[in-house]
Amino acid sequence: MEFSLTTLGSASARPTSDRFPSAHSLIVGGRLFLIDCGEGCQMQMARFKVPFSRLDNIFISHLHGDHVFGLFGLISTLDMIGRLSPLHIYAPEGLGEILGNISKSFGEVKFEVVLHTVKCKEPTLVCEFKNLEIYAFPLRHRIETYGYLFREKEPQLNIIKSAIASHKLSLEEIATLKRGDDVLRDGVTLPCKELTYKPFEPRSFAYCSDTGPFPKLQEWVKGTDLIYHEATYASDLKALSKSTAHSTSEDAAKVALAAGAKTLVLGHFSSRYRSLDLLLQEARNIFPESYLAREGMKFEVSLVENPLKNQQ
Amino acid sequence: MEFSLTTLGSASARPTSDRFPSAHSLIVGGRLFLIDCGEGCQMQMARFKVPFSRLDNIFISHLHGDHVFGLFGLISTLDMIGRLSPLHIYAPEGLGEILGNISKSFGEVKFEVVLHTVKCKEPTLVCEFKNLEIYAFPLRHRIETYGYLFREKEPQLNIIKSAIASHKLSLEEIATLKRGDDVLRDGVTLPCKELTYKPFEPRSFAYCSDTGPFPKLQEWVKGTDLIYHEATYASDLKALSKSTAHSTSEDAAKVALAAGAKTLVLGHFSSRYRSLDLLLQEARNIFPESYLAREGMKFEVSLVENPLKNQQ
Repeated sequence: MEFSLTTLGSASARPTSDRFPSAHSLIVGGRLFLIDCGEGCQMQMARFKVPFSRLDNIFISHLHGDHVFGLFGLISTLDMIGRLSPLHIYAPEGLGEILGNISKSFGEVKFEVVLHTVKCKEPTLVCEFKNLEIYAFPLRHRIETYGYLFREKEPQLNIIKSAIASHKLSLEEIATLKRGDDVLRDGVTLPCKELTYKPFEPRSFAYCSDTGPFPKLQEWVKGTDLIYHEATYASDLKALSKSTAHSTSEDAAKVALAAGAKTLVLGHFSSRYRSLDLLLQEARNIFPESYLAREGMKFEVSLVENPLKNQQ
Repeated sequence: MEFSLTTLGSASARPTSDRFPSAHSLIVGGRLFLIDCGEGCQMQMARFKVPFSRLDNIFISHLHGDHVFGLFGLISTLDMIGRLSPLHIYAPEGLGEILGNISKSFGEVKFEVVLHTVKCKEPTLVCEFKNLEIYAFPLRHRIETYGYLFREKEPQLNIIKSAIASHKLSLEEIATLKRGDDVLRDGVTLPCKELTYKPFEPRSFAYCSDTGPFPKLQEWVKGTDLIYHEATYASDLKALSKSTAHSTSEDAAKVALAAGAKTLVLGHFSSRYRSLDLLLQEARNIFPESYLAREGMKFEVSLVENPLKNQQ
């Protein structure tokens, strides 16, 4: 079960010769998600072999051009390669009008684009699959902006195999334990906690797009394995980061540290930095497991299985 | 005096991992022109060091997304890097509404975008500089589409230096000859043709964007040094090229041959061709000086100076 993030674009508003505007693809199990869709996203998808045919859901953080200008070409290409199934796009209010205008000028596509308007003041479930929940949470940027949290659902508990025989568990009792409840048998409690185990730890990824720092963010992404956080500037431009409602790599690292993340991916780099060493170093001084987003780079969250799973 | 074309995008509607949508930059003398502006154009400009600050004029062939989706990001970047002078865009009717909608949704830029609507049924001068004329000419595509012809103006004639002494030419007579007129002196004609020479041959470039073949095209680009002509397909897909109002590389080569061009650049390749060898070979069978447009490739038209210029 793959859980991986691929950077398609690591630039901020102005792309450079080797950094494209914001776009990431996320694979969770068999599902592919696109998060932000800056100009050139479809070329990066082709370059890094992100399968167009598996894309059903796109999440847009905000309606600045460097996060959405790739949508028009991507939608057009999906149409051209014969897509017929609906494409779901989650975005703040306003994208409908933008896409409507593009359709008027460049023609309708043959599949339905289903827009899901994101609007919330605290983390809110916006989309749910069998094994995965996706939450939106508000960020603090110059316009309405959202981050997204992808979290695998808690798996059903497994019964410790030896307990089935030693306690002569009935099918009904097994079902009770798997639901997380204790079994009461002739006045004796068989505690769920002792007879079951969680087969694996659910994995999670938080996408913290353009934002200035604010205290609640670290709470909202608490315990997330992998955090992407914008890091437009190094600390030398702290004042500029404040006035433009962006973050420094130190700001990003503080969020990852406070949230207890395993890994931090920094992105959305200002074009003024040819070398990103300073941004990385400043982040690592606070949160050692910080990495730079680089076009084509893949960040995997490995599945941590319960050792009991293999002992049976 | 440089006269060169750089390919920024050689793909047709669907880009590939290494072919971007249509865009070319042209340098004539000190002037920089952009011709079509597909998605990712600004990243290609950065990659191939096309100077953003020198861009004042953009020519758009038609309003299909793969020829214009790069405009939004490029205009935004020009704004961000502090552009204040007007940007002139030549395009068929409709671009104003498209850019107006984008401005409404993403904000106005600080410089003026001056739109020049192109509408003509035969080659028409749309723009003129001191040493250069630019003509639009209609193509035969599924929507209103134009090609563009960039032609250096005829240079002023030079006087053969030895003639000044041998004929004791006065300043007035020199001016007359330079204008191209004969001098009449005491009933004797001093023929302009014998006493002057053209210091160099004016150079020219024709951009033949998306089009099916039609006989007049070769007349309209007659004598052009460098021709870019779309070649979406090889001859195996002649039927498809007809039904989509595109050309095969053979169609393109026939235009170059009939026009007496020096060099033909083929572009706008269908994504179905991984190798373009077949397209190139089929063109070269007809017009040997055919070349494939490749991202970053530069095609120069050298200045052919009159040998008399150096003999003096």
